[in-house]
Amino acid sequence: MTMYELIDKKKEGKELTKNELYYIVKGYTDGSIPDYQMSAFLMAVCFVGMTREETYYFTMAMKESGDELDLSGVKGMVVDKHSTGGVGDKVSLVMGPMVAACGVPVAKMSGRGLGHTGGTIDKLESFSGFNVSPTEKEFIRNVNKIGISWAGQTVSLAPVDKKIYALRDVTATVDSIPLIASSIMSKKLASGAGGIVLDVTYGSGAFMKNTDDAVELAELMLDIGRKEGRKMSAAITDMNEPLGYAVGNSIEAAEAVECLKGNGPEDVMEVAYTLGSHMLVLNGKCRELSQAMQMLEETISSGTALKKMVQWIERQGGNKAMVYDTTLFKKAEIERVIKYTGENPAFLTKGNNPEASYIFEKASQLYVSSINGKAIGNAVQILGGGRAAKDEKIDMSVGVRLLKKTGDIIKKQEALAIIYANNEEKCNLATEIVREAFGISDKKIQKRNKIFREIF
Amino acid sequence: MTMYELIDKKKEGKELTKNELYYIVKGYTDGSIPDYQMSAFLMAVCFVGMTREETYYFTMAMKESGDELDLSGVKGMVVDKHSTGGVGDKVSLVMGPMVAACGVPVAKMSGRGLGHTGGTIDKLESFSGFNVSPTEKEFIRNVNKIGISWAGQTVSLAPVDKKIYALRDVTATVDSIPLIASSIMSKKLASGAGGIVLDVTYGSGAFMKNTDDAVELAELMLDIGRKEGRKMSAAITDMNEPLGYAVGNSIEAAEAVECLKGNGPEDVMEVAYTLGSHMLVLNGKCRELSQAMQMLEETISSGTALKKMVQWIERQGGNKAMVYDTTLFKKAEIERVIKYTGENPAFLTKGNNPEASYIFEKASQLYVSSINGKAIGNAVQILGGGRAAKDEKIDMSVGVRLLKKTGDIIKKQEALAIIYANNEEKCNLATEIVREAFGISDKKIQKRNKIFREIF
Repeated sequence: MTMYELIDKKKEGKELTKNELYYIVKGYTDGSIPDYQMSAFLMAVCFVGMTREETYYFTMAMKESGDELDLSGVKGMVVDKHSTGGVGDKVSLVMGPMVAACGVPVAKMSGRGLGHTGGTIDKLESFSGFNVSPTEKEFIRNVNKIGISWAGQTVSLAPVDKKIYALRDVTATVDSIPLIASSIMSKKLASGAGGIVLDVTYGSGAFMKNTDDAVELAELMLDIGRKEGRKMSAAITDMNEPLGYAVGNSIEAAEAVECLKGNGPEDVMEVAYTLGSHMLVLNGKCRELSQAMQMLEETISSGTALKKMVQWIERQGGNKAMVYDTTLFKKAEIERVIKYTGENPAFLTKGNNPEASYIFEKASQLYVSSINGKAIGNAVQILGGGRAAKDEKIDMSVGVRLLKKTGDIIKKQEALAIIYANNEEKCNLATEIVREAFGISDKKIQKRNKIFREIF
Repeated sequence: MTMYELIDKKKEGKELTKNELYYIVKGYTDGSIPDYQMSAFLMAVCFVGMTREETYYFTMAMKESGDELDLSGVKGMVVDKHSTGGVGDKVSLVMGPMVAACGVPVAKMSGRGLGHTGGTIDKLESFSGFNVSPTEKEFIRNVNKIGISWAGQTVSLAPVDKKIYALRDVTATVDSIPLIASSIMSKKLASGAGGIVLDVTYGSGAFMKNTDDAVELAELMLDIGRKEGRKMSAAITDMNEPLGYAVGNSIEAAEAVECLKGNGPEDVMEVAYTLGSHMLVLNGKCRELSQAMQMLEETISSGTALKKMVQWIERQGGNKAMVYDTTLFKKAEIERVIKYTGENPAFLTKGNNPEASYIFEKASQLYVSSINGKAIGNAVQILGGGRAAKDEKIDMSVGVRLLKKTGDIIKKQEALAIIYANNEEKCNLATEIVREAFGISDKKIQKRNKIFREIF
């Protein structure tokens, strides 16, 4: 067997065997297969795809390239949750305490943010003192003691995935559904949970641009997890606009706290309740989703979820006072309000588009028709709140607060958003991007549910 | 512009501009574009192809990556000939002296053989003393003095082609018609001839497996050459079985000499006359192919082509006595005759094929139905007559002489071929391969012309 033959076989559209896929992943892990052969292989996969069997073995080989987290010390069955990425997505921070408050153990490893999407670990670090690197022992002890613990990726889960991802990132081979599925699932399977709830996002702020692709990706990942004996479910979530109002580390953490206090934005709560109820059902805590939903709602109304958050932040060294009083989060120096000028800002970017000069003078009522999630994420990154490269330091205090969401009525001179910045120049850049991220229409826009479909 | 964007653009099936293609070739030449991006790009090209415009600019950029041969010192218009590769192909050695004897200058650069196909330069070196590395001045002077000169690639023609080819060779990206066309034409355009005759081969011993692909490749190359202002024509040639009877350096050189003496195999002469007549017409020496054909035939019957060969070999330092007496070529120690045993040898390789045991006991007449050219080429390579890697030394004296060709009647215990070897073990291996390269049938096989089509 040679890598040449396997590239050629894949290129010819033939199915690779388990042995062949392990040969590729092992060879790339140990360096015996060079980058240039791997990138040719990955490009062939982009064109001809992989079967479910192939994707499963490719995933397993990647999973076995490193350590696996041993959660056998946790009392009860751990259910993990993974989102394929979004902007303003603080659902984990809301759902974690809720689920833990129901008595289902939450033992989660998360990554840091990269590019226009933020990471839960970064948001947690905006609680001053919060330790995202407990030892494996502490991590397990926390879960058994208070029902919840969170850690950055300390052990080396599926390390070859990082190497493959870095190569895909520079060879235009990212957008392959089997490659995305295997990348996610190799890490998820290695992190040891008995059940996994997948939040597969679609839309302008997400990897998947439409629901068909999102459903395909979800079903492929469910299949991989089930072949490995994990309990699996998924929700397909609309990520055309950011989730909630806050985008940026500190302000998202504060918004998550507000959710637990019962003041959460509708969209964030919808996703948190849906995914949380899946977790309760996969764990076996509840039989029915409706029962799970009720149990979760009670953790908010009774305040037990908020208490769990306090307990959790304190246990991992964070300042619990920030949960009681969210004004304690570090603030940015500049707060700039962006007002609606009367044009359709989304058209401004399109150059000679004749509609660019279309002024809604005569319309009786105007609506926000879209908010480009990716653009908002990019604005936060430019402000210093996101990373262009791994290990970059980020600024917790910067961000963008939306004041209008899709479907809202908007009037001339009304505020669209607030920029939180620590640098005038960056603030100017972000202002322009955020302004143009808004689409305005004179047609009434129906508000839609965030959850497009649930898959079991 | 980044290589990432260009890979992605090609992957999306979009057409790259001249600037973009030059950016890629220049970047890969100077090393600023790494192998892993280039191989991903090449794989995308294998899937989505390149337009004629793209292929032209890609070729031009490759051509401009190195030196170009200046043939302006040659009196008269030089017409080059290129074959896409075959087994037993000694046509250049036959045609060169014929064309030169007609008064059309022959100034040719050739490569060495690689893999199962031999190179003209290697065959020329089997004339003892023959110097394949004249200086550029000597080369031009030879042409002006005696009408013919031949050289290995001394100047660096399209050097990036070598680099790209080496990468394609290990990433399963060889079989793309635009990439094959640009690889060949970049070198041909750089070697400075005003006209180019292409011999595009198809069949088991060739790159192109069928006539459709061969025609597509030929037309693409004609287009590139014409865009550059060269006079172009092509012949599509059957390379399902080796050309002539001799395969191996010395025995092919000897067979070429026999051709000039009027004893040439029919198929070699058919191809040599066809391509030679194209050269005479492109040069302007003749208006009509029929006139050119007649002129070429006269060089054989009158002995002027043979005289030209003697002059040429002598001028480049070779032993001209070998032209008069081909028994002077270095001989191999072992000569083994392979006899037909009564089975169909081609079936023996197919394992459990029920026909493997089919013995043609009852057939009144048996015929050779096929001879796998690639297998014969591989056998010669194993004997030491071909290279697995560049710069490998080769043994001029080894080879395979076919005694039967496709369509010939074959009887039990009659000889199929002779192996010339210098090593018993290699001889055994080659014997097995050569035996299995023959297909036998009880149905009469029509002998076909070698030239499938001529394209002007």
